[in-house]
Parts: sequence; C-alpha cells; structure tokens
Amino acid sequence: MMNEKLQVIKIGGDIVDKPDLLHHFLNSFSKITHLKILVHGGGILLNDLAEKLSIPVKVIDGRRITDSETLDLALMTYSGLINTKIVAKLNSLKCQAVGLNGADGGVINAVKRPVREIDYGLVGDITDVNSEFLKILIGSGHTPVLCALSCDQSGQMLNTNADTIAAEIAIAMASEFDVQLTYVLDKPGVLSDLDNSNSIIRMLNMEQYKDLKKKQKISGGMLPKLHTGFYALQKSVSSVNITNIKNISGQSGTQLQSEGN
Amino acid sequence: MMNEKLQVIKIGGDIVDKPDLLHHFLNSFSKITHLKILVHGGGILLNDLAEKLSIPVKVIDGRRITDSETLDLALMTYSGLINTKIVAKLNSLKCQAVGLNGADGGVINAVKRPVREIDYGLVGDITDVNSEFLKILIGSGHTPVLCALSCDQSGQMLNTNADTIAAEIAIAMASEFDVQLTYVLDKPGVLSDLDNSNSIIRMLNMEQYKDLKKKQKISGGMLPKLHTGFYALQKSVSSVNITNIKNISGQSGTQLQSEGN
Repeated sequence: MMNEKLQVIKIGGDIVDKPDLLHHFLNSFSKITHLKILVHGGGILLNDLAEKLSIPVKVIDGRRITDSETLDLALMTYSGLINTKIVAKLNSLKCQAVGLNGADGGVINAVKRPVREIDYGLVGDITDVNSEFLKILIGSGHTPVLCALSCDQSGQMLNTNADTIAAEIAIAMASEFDVQLTYVLDKPGVLSDLDNSNSIIRMLNMEQYKDLKKKQKISGGMLPKLHTGFYALQKSVSSVNITNIKNISGQSGTQLQSEGN
Repeated sequence: MMNEKLQVIKIGGDIVDKPDLLHHFLNSFSKITHLKILVHGGGILLNDLAEKLSIPVKVIDGRRITDSETLDLALMTYSGLINTKIVAKLNSLKCQAVGLNGADGGVINAVKRPVREIDYGLVGDITDVNSEFLKILIGSGHTPVLCALSCDQSGQMLNTNADTIAAEIAIAMASEFDVQLTYVLDKPGVLSDLDNSNSIIRMLNMEQYKDLKKKQKISGGMLPKLHTGFYALQKSVSSVNITNIKNISGQSGTQLQSEGN
C-alpha cells in the first residue's frame, strides 16, 4: 500500500516579513488538501524588538549568538507573535492549525551546540523529533505549525534553524508517509544566474550543487536549504523542491535529485 | 460508570511572577496522577515590557484597555514567554505538556466584547471551547497548558480573563469527566479576616458569598474567581476550590458549595 502524502513546507523571513505575501501564502497553504505541516522562520521582528529594547545583537562570522536575553526575544517574536498570528489566520481560513514550538508535546528535542571555536550560546542541535505527537495531530485533522525553537531535556529552550527543523520533521515522518519537503521562497527556485529570475535550474543533483557552490553561484540562505534538502533525500524523504508561493503544492521550481536519478 | 477525574487548575500572576513559587507549583502539578489541565494568568511581565517599550498602559475603572499594541505585548509575554517556559519546565519534569493559546486547534473561541459604556478594545467574551481538541490531547497522555488569550472567527486574537477560561474549560469538559476546578493562589483560601491567614472559610455557599461581598470582605481578584466558580458549579462541574500551592490536588482551602448542599 502506498503511504499517504504529507507535505512539509518551510517559509522564511522573506515571506513572514511581508504581510501581503504571507497572506497570499497562507491562503494557498490552507487550500492544500493533502496532509501538511508548516515550519516558519523568524524574520526581522526579533531584530526590531532587540533594537527597541536596546539589546545588542551579537554576531560572529555572520551568525547570531543567542544569549539568554536574545532567546527571550525569540520566544516572544517567533512563538508569541509570528506563530500565533499564522495559526489564528489559518483557523479563520478553515485550516485547523496548532502552533508548536519545540517544547510543546516534546516535539523538537535538542542539545545545546557544543562549543568548539565559537560558543553560539543557546542554539540547539536536534537530537530527535517526536513524530508520534505530530501523527496524533495530523491524524485528528489538525495542521501543525512550527517555529524555529527546540528544547533540551532540562527544559531550556534553544534557538534552532528553521530549514533544519523542516528537514528533520520530514525525515522523522518519512517512515509512515510519502513526504514532500518544500522550501518556499520569494523567488522561483535555484537560479543559475541570480540576476535572471527565468534562469531556474529545474533539476539539481548533488554533483551540480557542489559545482555551483564551488563557483560561488549559490550562497547565503540557499546553502542550508540545499544542504539539508539533499540530506533529507538520503534519509527517505520522497521529494525535495525549492519554489515560490505561486505553486506550493506542486513540484515546481527546483527539484532536488538524489544520486543515481 | 463513574466519569474519570479531570482537574482544571488555574494559577495567576501572584504565582507566575515568583520563580520559586512557580517552580514549587510546577513540581507539585507534574506529580498529579489524574488527568489535568493548567490555565495561567499573565502577571507583571506585560506591564514591564510595556514600560520598556514606552507603550502606555490604558486603564479605565481599573480595567486594562487592550489596543493592538497591548495585544501584541500579551501575545509576546503570555504565549511567547510565560506559556513556553511553563511547558518546557513541565516536560523536563516528565509531564508532557502542550502549550495552547485560544487559536491553537480553535480551542477558545470568542467574540470581541460589545461596546457599552466602555470599549475595552481587543477583549474576548468566550463563545465556546473546543473540548474535542482537549480530549484528543489528554486522551493521548498530554497535559494542555493554556494562557489567557482567545481568538475570534476572523483570526483576531483577544485578551481574555484566565479565571473565565479555566471555568469555561471546566464546564465544557464536565459532560464527559468528573471535573474539579481549582483556583490556586498565594494564600490558603477565602479568608473571613484578610489579616489572618488562619481564618480560612472551609465551605462557602452562594448566600454566604453574597453576604461577604456586601460587607466588602471579598474584593479584587477574589470576586471573579468566586463568581465564575459558582457559575461552574451550576454548570455540572463537580467541585470548585480555592487553595494555595501546598495541597493543589486535594480539596483543601475553600470549597464552594452549590445551593441546597
């Protein structure tokens, strides 16, 4: 018997920060008829709030250091503001959503990232996803909506990359579902020429990805998506694509290809 | 067949604001072996954040007016900070909690309070509780933890009194469970002499309550607890008590008595 289709969709700050785009996305998302899970990033609200509260944003090598004050900002903005408003909006669109951060139902368990050269602070490396809890929710007609926070065994919340959360959820659900992982961006896919939005690479395999990376044609936020995307393919996720909000439920944009395909 | 016992416990700002007391409470709460639901109030964090952000707190007749900015503060502090930290702590105590605000699973539906003499702003009057969703969670071994927010049909979040949320949940669950509603305070119960913590009124019926109210021996935050408590008793909730954190699972403190008892 074929497993039921489950789509894990991740949206980032480039959509969360733009009310019109977010609204458009949530409308489309609410109309998806197969099982679905949404993971969202944080956007600029955290930095805005940090500035208003005069809390310095600490960055080393382009990466934010999450101290205790910054973590509180993440709880307030990712979980309190953004997640709640997305869930409330989806419910008004007749999509019965349930907002989750990593602590709810013990859904995203993590350990604080070990200190090597840099101490990133309260940042979590995921140890496991409680897929049983997610199955209870989707099995009862609910749509989980997760923000980018995990929790360790002592009850300490940890900041965690939303791309990674989406990929780990996709992997954890792949044993029982036909899982499609979709990264939705404010651009149509991976571009061979960043200045030309028509230069979408329709199919991308690991070798091509490494080549593009070496030639520095891919950088910034696209790297973790492709890195976690190829990892998810290796771990039994059926398909991974990177697309914009126009066609979220299909396999448009850039489709990642596992080796040998 | 007797219905299974379910205890709905509400804690307010007097406990939420004191880390030691909250920690003590959560330890006791996690050890309750029958089914349980926790509802918590907001405490001083919202006012603290309002002050830091220079957002004026508007109060008419002692009641806060919730404008859009204040509602965001409530989402950030009640749902983002307080709820998340309680859930994370409970999970570390092996009580698998799920944090909810009114939007999650459409659990607390409300309408904006009609404007009569005063427009309280984004304040919700509860229309219904989605008891099916709560049953799914407790039926799968989870403990719902709710903050004082509801949601209307358009997806607008609304500030809502935590005592009322606790009572409405207790009432909604009373058709299938033997429900005990417990208001937990930083004092041992309803006192006949506010200056003497040994003057606990062990049993209180509606007539005595009205009498004490008339004599102004009960005021402030105790009034809504008793008001909603007696209402819950009329609506098939099995028992209502007001107690401190020392004996939350028993029927200590002040026990409300329905008429005729």
